[in-house]
Amino acid sequence: MSSTEQNHPFDTATQLTRESNDFHGQTSKRYNNMVGPFGGVTAATLLRSVLEHPERQGIPVSLTINYAAPVSDGGFTIQAEPARTNRSTQHWFIKLHQGDKTVVTGTAVFAYRRETWSTTETEFPKVPPANEVSSLPTEGLPAWVQNYHIKTVEGVPLQLSQTKTEETADSVTKQWIQDEPRRPLDFLSLTAICDAFFPRIYVRRKEMVPIGTVSLTIYFHADKKTLDEHGDKEVLGHARALQFHNGFFDQTGEIWTPEGKLLATTSQFVYYKE
Amino acid sequence: MSSTEQNHPFDTATQLTRESNDFHGQTSKRYNNMVGPFGGVTAATLLRSVLEHPERQGIPVSLTINYAAPVSDGGFTIQAEPARTNRSTQHWFIKLHQGDKTVVTGTAVFAYRRETWSTTETEFPKVPPANEVSSLPTEGLPAWVQNYHIKTVEGVPLQLSQTKTEETADSVTKQWIQDEPRRPLDFLSLTAICDAFFPRIYVRRKEMVPIGTVSLTIYFHADKKTLDEHGDKEVLGHARALQFHNGFFDQTGEIWTPEGKLLATTSQFVYYKE
Repeated sequence: MSSTEQNHPFDTATQLTRESNDFHGQTSKRYNNMVGPFGGVTAATLLRSVLEHPERQGIPVSLTINYAAPVSDGGFTIQAEPARTNRSTQHWFIKLHQGDKTVVTGTAVFAYRRETWSTTETEFPKVPPANEVSSLPTEGLPAWVQNYHIKTVEGVPLQLSQTKTEETADSVTKQWIQDEPRRPLDFLSLTAICDAFFPRIYVRRKEMVPIGTVSLTIYFHADKKTLDEHGDKEVLGHARALQFHNGFFDQTGEIWTPEGKLLATTSQFVYYKE
Repeated sequence: MSSTEQNHPFDTATQLTRESNDFHGQTSKRYNNMVGPFGGVTAATLLRSVLEHPERQGIPVSLTINYAAPVSDGGFTIQAEPARTNRSTQHWFIKLHQGDKTVVTGTAVFAYRRETWSTTETEFPKVPPANEVSSLPTEGLPAWVQNYHIKTVEGVPLQLSQTKTEETADSVTKQWIQDEPRRPLDFLSLTAICDAFFPRIYVRRKEMVPIGTVSLTIYFHADKKTLDEHGDKEVLGHARALQFHNGFFDQTGEIWTPEGKLLATTSQFVYYKE
């Protein structure tokens, strides 16, 4: 189960080749979703273009990715533009296009971080440790799911439960998750994991309807040292929706280490039909 | 207390003049914060550039605004670029600059909305009605606060409490808020109200430290009809922070009508020192 980072399918899927101000990449069938690639890998690929940009300063603190259209199979080009560089923060515009069509837009904030007074206000969710939770069967699920080892504590979508039940009272999911095969956690894989929750509406309604994330935001609480110390262990994802209303629902989530460090908070707004 | 929309100070503060692809505006002293203008008015002004753009389609569903530097007093220029127009959604890049310096970056998603299965999962907070809550004294506070009538149910920052107390257990705020003078709620004022919470760290630590929002995201659940029906009544804002860590804390919030309609969900990531 061990792997070197360079050979991991996730690193291949997010790989970019720089040519002047353009970063060229290729979609990876291994991370396909129902239509186009898994949005988490797309977000990670846009973030990677900034991380690999020669003018980049600091580490990611905030990332917003807007999915304007499905990414088509094949090649794409990303442009990352440093819009403003301050002493301790840097602001980026990011755009993914295929041919002359913009497919994904984004912004990122990078910063140099330093130690300050710190405290975690919210509590680590009440969950059994990962080794006491059974693995989610991934048979029949889209390709991207096969790249994760997911152990759902609470809140599975319909097609994974045994029988169709009434609407549940909530759309909360708690899941242990790690890359499969294992891979040391970094800003890129943390980004993808922030989007690796099944759509809240599948959990709430226990049925599938057409959906698509329009906007994803991630706040990185972790610095590089915290991620390095975490290594390739699983993380706990916790997500919920506050409202489903006339075609759009929100999702809010947190990603934790098993020891109770809050690595990232994330939100998204998702289109749905019916 | 009545006002026509056009003459309201908020409309003056967010006013833009279009010249080809540029929207020109002016900061308004009435909405000054401690350094530069109140971020909520800046966010609303960027959104207004899209709303007034001749190619705009639909209504706002998602908005992310990144504050790269304080806006200096005086004139500014906004460029709103339609990055992708689909049948039912439209994606925008937005940039505010002063001279050759980018000061604010942003993205927005607009959409045509239609009725679907809908449900509100989270509950309206337990609060007394606005007429039973006393008004926040705004004397000595920055100019922008004077443009709001705020009634704090829970969670005031230090300078507004009588004595310095120990750190409180949480940074939760619940507040009734409306424009002062009253103004019918629209997407612009709702945007500003999403940023009209005092910084969570002032509530949590009951003291002031240097802070600045780096990124603000708003998901609009309300459509125009809902806002029109709401009129100029107060709304309830509810906000909290999950973690303060090495220079950045998050804030998550919701904006509700008194009747329990969830109008918007919002998050931001805020830089702090010490």
